[in-house]
Amino acid sequence: MNKLVLIRHGQSEWNLENRFTGWQDVDLSEKGKAEAVQAGKLLAQAGFTFDIAYTSMLKRAIKTLHLVLESMDLLWIPEVKAWQLNERYYGALQGLNKADTIEKYSPEQVLTWRRSFTVQPPAVTAEDIRSPLKDIRYAAIDPSLLPLTESLETMMERVIPYYQNEISPALKSGKHILIAAHGNTLRGLVKYLDHLSEEDIVSYEIPTGIPLVYEMDDSFVPLQKYFLHSDTIGNTVL
Amino acid sequence: MNKLVLIRHGQSEWNLENRFTGWQDVDLSEKGKAEAVQAGKLLAQAGFTFDIAYTSMLKRAIKTLHLVLESMDLLWIPEVKAWQLNERYYGALQGLNKADTIEKYSPEQVLTWRRSFTVQPPAVTAEDIRSPLKDIRYAAIDPSLLPLTESLETMMERVIPYYQNEISPALKSGKHILIAAHGNTLRGLVKYLDHLSEEDIVSYEIPTGIPLVYEMDDSFVPLQKYFLHSDTIGNTVL
Repeated sequence: MNKLVLIRHGQSEWNLENRFTGWQDVDLSEKGKAEAVQAGKLLAQAGFTFDIAYTSMLKRAIKTLHLVLESMDLLWIPEVKAWQLNERYYGALQGLNKADTIEKYSPEQVLTWRRSFTVQPPAVTAEDIRSPLKDIRYAAIDPSLLPLTESLETMMERVIPYYQNEISPALKSGKHILIAAHGNTLRGLVKYLDHLSEEDIVSYEIPTGIPLVYEMDDSFVPLQKYFLHSDTIGNTVL
Repeated sequence: MNKLVLIRHGQSEWNLENRFTGWQDVDLSEKGKAEAVQAGKLLAQAGFTFDIAYTSMLKRAIKTLHLVLESMDLLWIPEVKAWQLNERYYGALQGLNKADTIEKYSPEQVLTWRRSFTVQPPAVTAEDIRSPLKDIRYAAIDPSLLPLTESLETMMERVIPYYQNEISPALKSGKHILIAAHGNTLRGLVKYLDHLSEEDIVSYEIPTGIPLVYEMDDSFVPLQKYFLHSDTIGNTVL
């Protein structure tokens, strides 16, 4: 049985403050750190192990990965940090409080930006301090690839090729893989893996810090998926 | 000016208990974690940045690296974990208390094991629970390369080729490099970089958690090296 495990980073400081985050590099909250440690303990208890881990270039995902691996005594496995696994780039909404944004625009407009598959929020300019073109960590990347805003659809144009070209071959070579990433990145992956419709994926919620386990057949077609809770361990896995 | 920074992991739980560690995967002590955080702050204050980091497959070095990078807001840079940067493999002494070992053998014998360049401590058997052949993290490595005991000399036969083949080319391509490793690994590197004699290197002490900075000319010949203390920053670097 081939298994792939996805985990959304634990609660961040801006989840807590209800602000649009995107590529803003905010830290985990104390609760977020505890969620990651707990996820690692559950995975170890349920007998999971990993050969390689993938994460984004944002610290809330990287630290989640480190805390999970430390809990599992797997800090020594290789880890790959890829900008393609970064959260959806939220354009000019990044840093804004969600309540203020609703007041400034309208509840309908903000809901559309958050939950439409194809609509992009207003873009930042290339000169904006929040622009990836201004961030040294992306300096080695072809600027034409870097987003100034993204819909879930355009985000998938970087996430899915990265999965196909980098992660899927590792999975097919027999490696056990953990991906520590973000709510929308993982939503895009789930849409791809499960062939979900645009309508279904925008309402699919992935909770923070709860491992999402894919069990796949020998052709790497997903047979089933489940969230690994402490209940799951008691009732199903062990 | 090309710079290479070496850092020995912060104090470990077994440094504290005065036990031979080698490849035993012990954690940092609280003091060791604080040392790593402080080292990162000093490096950031002194204007250092890094493009890539190398470390061993042992958690005291990996966690030191993570704490340094987090302090510098550089968690996003690539990191490479290499068994070749592991601490000197201390054979059958691993896990023993140093005082008990002195009593069991003799002060002279233990001093020879610790400070001779060429003498190896007693080896473990391949079946010993401490043997690298029994550790899943080294399962993908050709077993004939894995040590059952090492002198500083035989340890250098893995450390220096790794430096020459992996790290030196990255340095020559213009990358700023941080190596987070162990007392003897770094001692071996210093011997190689500074052409020190066997006598000089065995008495060369690298303190835990203090960055050792090499400044190199355009041919990557070391011009000078210094430990980065808060004093160094006040007086020299800034």
